[in-house]
Amino acid sequence: MKIAVAGLGLIGGSFLKAAQAAGYDARGFHHGEDSDFFAQADIVIVAMPPSAIEPWLRKHSPAFKPGAIATDVCGVKRPLYEAFRDECLAAKWHLVCGHPMAGKEVGGFANSTPGLFKGASMILTPYPYTGRGPLDTLEKFFRSLGFAKIVSTTPEHHDEMIAFTSQLCHIISSAYVRDPLSAEHDGFSAGSFRDMVRVGAPDPDVWTELFLANRDKLADVLSRYIARLEDFRAALGQCDAGRLHAALAQGGEAKKRITSPKA
Amino acid sequence: MKIAVAGLGLIGGSFLKAAQAAGYDARGFHHGEDSDFFAQADIVIVAMPPSAIEPWLRKHSPAFKPGAIATDVCGVKRPLYEAFRDECLAAKWHLVCGHPMAGKEVGGFANSTPGLFKGASMILTPYPYTGRGPLDTLEKFFRSLGFAKIVSTTPEHHDEMIAFTSQLCHIISSAYVRDPLSAEHDGFSAGSFRDMVRVGAPDPDVWTELFLANRDKLADVLSRYIARLEDFRAALGQCDAGRLHAALAQGGEAKKRITSPKA
Repeated sequence: MKIAVAGLGLIGGSFLKAAQAAGYDARGFHHGEDSDFFAQADIVIVAMPPSAIEPWLRKHSPAFKPGAIATDVCGVKRPLYEAFRDECLAAKWHLVCGHPMAGKEVGGFANSTPGLFKGASMILTPYPYTGRGPLDTLEKFFRSLGFAKIVSTTPEHHDEMIAFTSQLCHIISSAYVRDPLSAEHDGFSAGSFRDMVRVGAPDPDVWTELFLANRDKLADVLSRYIARLEDFRAALGQCDAGRLHAALAQGGEAKKRITSPKA
Repeated sequence: MKIAVAGLGLIGGSFLKAAQAAGYDARGFHHGEDSDFFAQADIVIVAMPPSAIEPWLRKHSPAFKPGAIATDVCGVKRPLYEAFRDECLAAKWHLVCGHPMAGKEVGGFANSTPGLFKGASMILTPYPYTGRGPLDTLEKFFRSLGFAKIVSTTPEHHDEMIAFTSQLCHIISSAYVRDPLSAEHDGFSAGSFRDMVRVGAPDPDVWTELFLANRDKLADVLSRYIARLEDFRAALGQCDAGRLHAALAQGGEAKKRITSPKA
């Protein structure tokens, strides 16, 4: 199988290296390059900034070979899914939008690594009309790169979940680290501070795009989160031990549910 | 040197094990026990829940030997400091309140480990009248347990910093994990979610006490934090790319300042 990776940042670079390490004939390309290899590729991974993906696919997909499977890595799935929904129904190539649940707090090809996806989940949002064939091919391919789990869902559900599991975390961390006391943390901090600031500096260009592309879902989870913080603030203001205790106990119950082994 | 540890939870247990591993004659005691060893100890570490520390010291300190040094591990420093400020001026024993910057998301003696303090910071809030002798003894002792840094400051400054570097992180994590979407995270989450929920279940009894003991400082940092989140929410509501970008860029600048090597 020939694998083309378009876009060589942290994620694209890691896909390229992982595919090469797994023995595929994999080649990587920077943003604007043209290549005959795209016409020969069985799988094309578009690992570009969100707004660059659709134009790139419109330009290059006409040259894809019949049966080629394209996927992407964008953190919000509704826009690209909708953009090609009708077109791909009749196309000779397949688009199966994807989102690898892996990353690092530092970006760029220099930080990419073939082991980035080891144990991670790959989320796919196939069209209802996409056949089993391309999905099986992709699943086998992603597992061979180290992914431990392949999840198929709707773009709507993906975007809601990711607003909470990823985007909100980045807002939380960014808002946290901006406090003036951050600069004085040395000697007064440990693991909880370290965890809290880790993803506090996502690329502003990329993440502004991602936030806006998902602003309805993100605003929902952010509003719910702020309401829970307001509850803490009110309890502190009223010196209300019972209310603080109840809030902490509810957090403890919620954490127990997610960390317990599944029934 | 004889070391007595009163209170054998995660922190007390770890102090006991670390002191024994470092070769001291160290003994640990549960909450209510009486022991002649307290009268022989050179250093007494009171590692009990916040509200238990002062009564324990009032009961046992009259038996301390002359020159004995007592310290504690409470996460808020003003209450105990104030409680003994006048008394210790004339006492034959020393109180040097302390707070080890180390912990785990799971408590109890079963999770305690002699390596817990390796590389950590120990914060001390000595009285202005405390001489160099006890401070030097403590510093040497704490370094021998693995602490990499000993910081001396006022209880006021400690409590302000810890409201931000620790208490706020626990509120953030607890409020985050309570979202109903937490329960569905599996397959849709990676490192940022994992970091965010790690300290989401602190002991409600202990942390309610800690929050209330520091509620002025904690309310301040929580209010500033909520204001920055409101800024994100407003920018999303107005679809304001410039404002989102500016907020993320400010977070990036703040993070750069804390992770850069010091001048």
